[in-house]
Amino acid sequence: MKNINIGLLGLGTIGTGVAEVLLSKAGKLTGQIGIPLTLQRILVRDANKQRSIELEPHILTNHAEDVINDPEVNIIIEVIGGEHPALEYIKQAIRNGKHVVTANKEVIAKHGYELLSLARKHDVGLRYEASVGGGIPLISPFQQDLAANDISAIYAILNGTTNYILTQMSQEGLDFASALKRAQELGYAEANPTNDIEGIDAAYKLAILSGLAFHTNVNPGNIYREGISRLQANDFRYAKEFGYAIKLLAIAKRDSEAIELRAHPVFIPENSQLAKVDDVYNAIQVEGNLTGKLIFYGQGAGALPTSSAIMADVLAIARNIYHGRSNASKIELEQKLKIKPMADLKIHYYFRLTVIDRPGVLSKISTVLGNNSIGISSVIQKESNSKSQTAVLVIMTHIAEEKAVQRALQEIKGLKVVKEVSNFIRVEE
Amino acid sequence: MKNINIGLLGLGTIGTGVAEVLLSKAGKLTGQIGIPLTLQRILVRDANKQRSIELEPHILTNHAEDVINDPEVNIIIEVIGGEHPALEYIKQAIRNGKHVVTANKEVIAKHGYELLSLARKHDVGLRYEASVGGGIPLISPFQQDLAANDISAIYAILNGTTNYILTQMSQEGLDFASALKRAQELGYAEANPTNDIEGIDAAYKLAILSGLAFHTNVNPGNIYREGISRLQANDFRYAKEFGYAIKLLAIAKRDSEAIELRAHPVFIPENSQLAKVDDVYNAIQVEGNLTGKLIFYGQGAGALPTSSAIMADVLAIARNIYHGRSNASKIELEQKLKIKPMADLKIHYYFRLTVIDRPGVLSKISTVLGNNSIGISSVIQKESNSKSQTAVLVIMTHIAEEKAVQRALQEIKGLKVVKEVSNFIRVEE
Repeated sequence: MKNINIGLLGLGTIGTGVAEVLLSKAGKLTGQIGIPLTLQRILVRDANKQRSIELEPHILTNHAEDVINDPEVNIIIEVIGGEHPALEYIKQAIRNGKHVVTANKEVIAKHGYELLSLARKHDVGLRYEASVGGGIPLISPFQQDLAANDISAIYAILNGTTNYILTQMSQEGLDFASALKRAQELGYAEANPTNDIEGIDAAYKLAILSGLAFHTNVNPGNIYREGISRLQANDFRYAKEFGYAIKLLAIAKRDSEAIELRAHPVFIPENSQLAKVDDVYNAIQVEGNLTGKLIFYGQGAGALPTSSAIMADVLAIARNIYHGRSNASKIELEQKLKIKPMADLKIHYYFRLTVIDRPGVLSKISTVLGNNSIGISSVIQKESNSKSQTAVLVIMTHIAEEKAVQRALQEIKGLKVVKEVSNFIRVEE
Repeated sequence: MKNINIGLLGLGTIGTGVAEVLLSKAGKLTGQIGIPLTLQRILVRDANKQRSIELEPHILTNHAEDVINDPEVNIIIEVIGGEHPALEYIKQAIRNGKHVVTANKEVIAKHGYELLSLARKHDVGLRYEASVGGGIPLISPFQQDLAANDISAIYAILNGTTNYILTQMSQEGLDFASALKRAQELGYAEANPTNDIEGIDAAYKLAILSGLAFHTNVNPGNIYREGISRLQANDFRYAKEFGYAIKLLAIAKRDSEAIELRAHPVFIPENSQLAKVDDVYNAIQVEGNLTGKLIFYGQGAGALPTSSAIMADVLAIARNIYHGRSNASKIELEQKLKIKPMADLKIHYYFRLTVIDRPGVLSKISTVLGNNSIGISSVIQKESNSKSQTAVLVIMTHIAEEKAVQRALQEIKGLKVVKEVSNFIRVEE
């Protein structure tokens, strides 16, 4: 073997980053592996497009098969993104005996177990460090460095777009729409931002991490999920008054029998490490029985950080190829863990209610809460408006059960003195 | 092969932690590797000592050779610490064809290259994840996950003892001696705390990390080093006034030709991530050309976190043994990089001077600084004492050259109006 040949599926932002690293660092990479890595074939949408990097025209193709079926290609890097046709390409590549490196969180979250089993069957490697946390080492630490730990919890900021929006809302007092617009202008949010702002992206990534942490197969559809679009500027002000920041956290916890999986906005203490993670940065807090609390912090997206993760996977596979070692990995799944129903969650809550500004209102509301076994830890009245005769009630609760809270909020909505249940946000202490 | 047999050198705090994990998690570990890990032989000081874990008495010995030369032992875990006889034990183990896992920062910092070469010669693995950062994955991320990066800088809090002392001084206003005493009472500092408080431990760890980051062989003796014992409570107050925290940082930077290596107290902006790392926690900030800024945070010491790292290494080696793969690793060193002389450092400085409290003093001092091309960015006068007729001058400089600063401080010491150069601390912006 004279070279290890790479086939690249996709030459967008990330694909271009990967190609750049492969070309500009060729000597260094060869030194690390012992054999050159060659960029053999690249799937592009338009072979004639003007590009920022110089590539020999004959390596570009717009037929995926030219890459996936090329007998000379050893490793396929998939950076198309999205479920289809990326899934089919990866499967075909594995069946063709090619090792696969992918940055595709959706495919890995939804089909990771199936693909890893297929890879094992065909004795090839399937690596996906770039699928979560961009340039932050996570997959490999979870698989190797934390292997002796029982992991009890993950609390993670996994989506840079929403973290940027939340930082803008918190620091600049922007409303959601303006913060989103700013994120779009800066290229941090897409024209259609649904996957980011609705927590879908975070849920995919949490499915991958929690699957590794708990040695199980997590269906991202089973992750409870709320987006950030219903947060308002005053929620951030009140959070600060109570000593909290608002973050979109992806949370996975495990007790002996069940796991809790959710991605939604939460209040977290403003002096916690995660509260200080601003802008597009990601941070992943892991709690292991041996390590205690670990935090990994860095850029969770972008061409270069993602290329770093992809190249780490490519190098690991290439080293094994060069040394004649198998790249297939053992898949060790524990018995299927139950997923705890969201209704059973026990946590603190923040409520923001718009009420008629007159005596006796709080008494009515607290009666409903009391009847549902929800204790109030503090309450403040804000924004009295003499014209509309309304005020805002901000309530922080003791630990309560999600289903009781949902029931109470329904009852509160029905009270004549309540104009609106304007928001409710869970509080992680 | 029915078992992979472990020989453990040392049964102190960490050794006991490792033994506990090996015994209590035997089933889980076997599942991960495919073959049981057996604790075959343990070197102890006193075989009759009462212990917190139950061990079959026949596996204990106080002769190192019983462990190192046992033909049944596959992997040696060295947790004795210190340079000798640990170094000799490790060498002998490698020569006997045994894989070695060590937590020994001193041995790896001073002899890592030699030992890795020896291990390669004997086709065995030598792993040392536990030598830096306790339970924080670092060695493996540097070797694998960051492999495609050119690393330009490391800024790290690598010693929990000193970070605890500095946190106490900063938050509680304690003087150094009281903070050290508290650390000793809590078991965070040893009776002889020299290795920690003089930055020796941090320098060992920096030697290991910077060697990996820059693909070179760093002699810890070449790392410039200052301890924390000359810090006083008022330094922390003044730091806060200027918007800084004081941390003992281990710093490695690289430009095209030379590396800068130093471990000493520094002012860092109080809103930086590292400034918020308190108590015994460690944090390692790495800057890669692809990843950008990454931070790894967690417990840098303690039996369980260290056991986590040791077991990660043991599992990695055991998996390779089980699959018949070599554990030897390639050592790729770049041409020997020069180490930048400390005198050439260019950085901001903080000076605390005790002066005679009368007009014209500042003028004399600023003349000396000016003559040495050192610009003042701010100066405040503090602690005027009418009895002793002294005051404290706190000066922050623009970027200046270390050798000019040292020369200026000598000249300032010679001024009649200056009672004392009470402290000077470098400032990382």
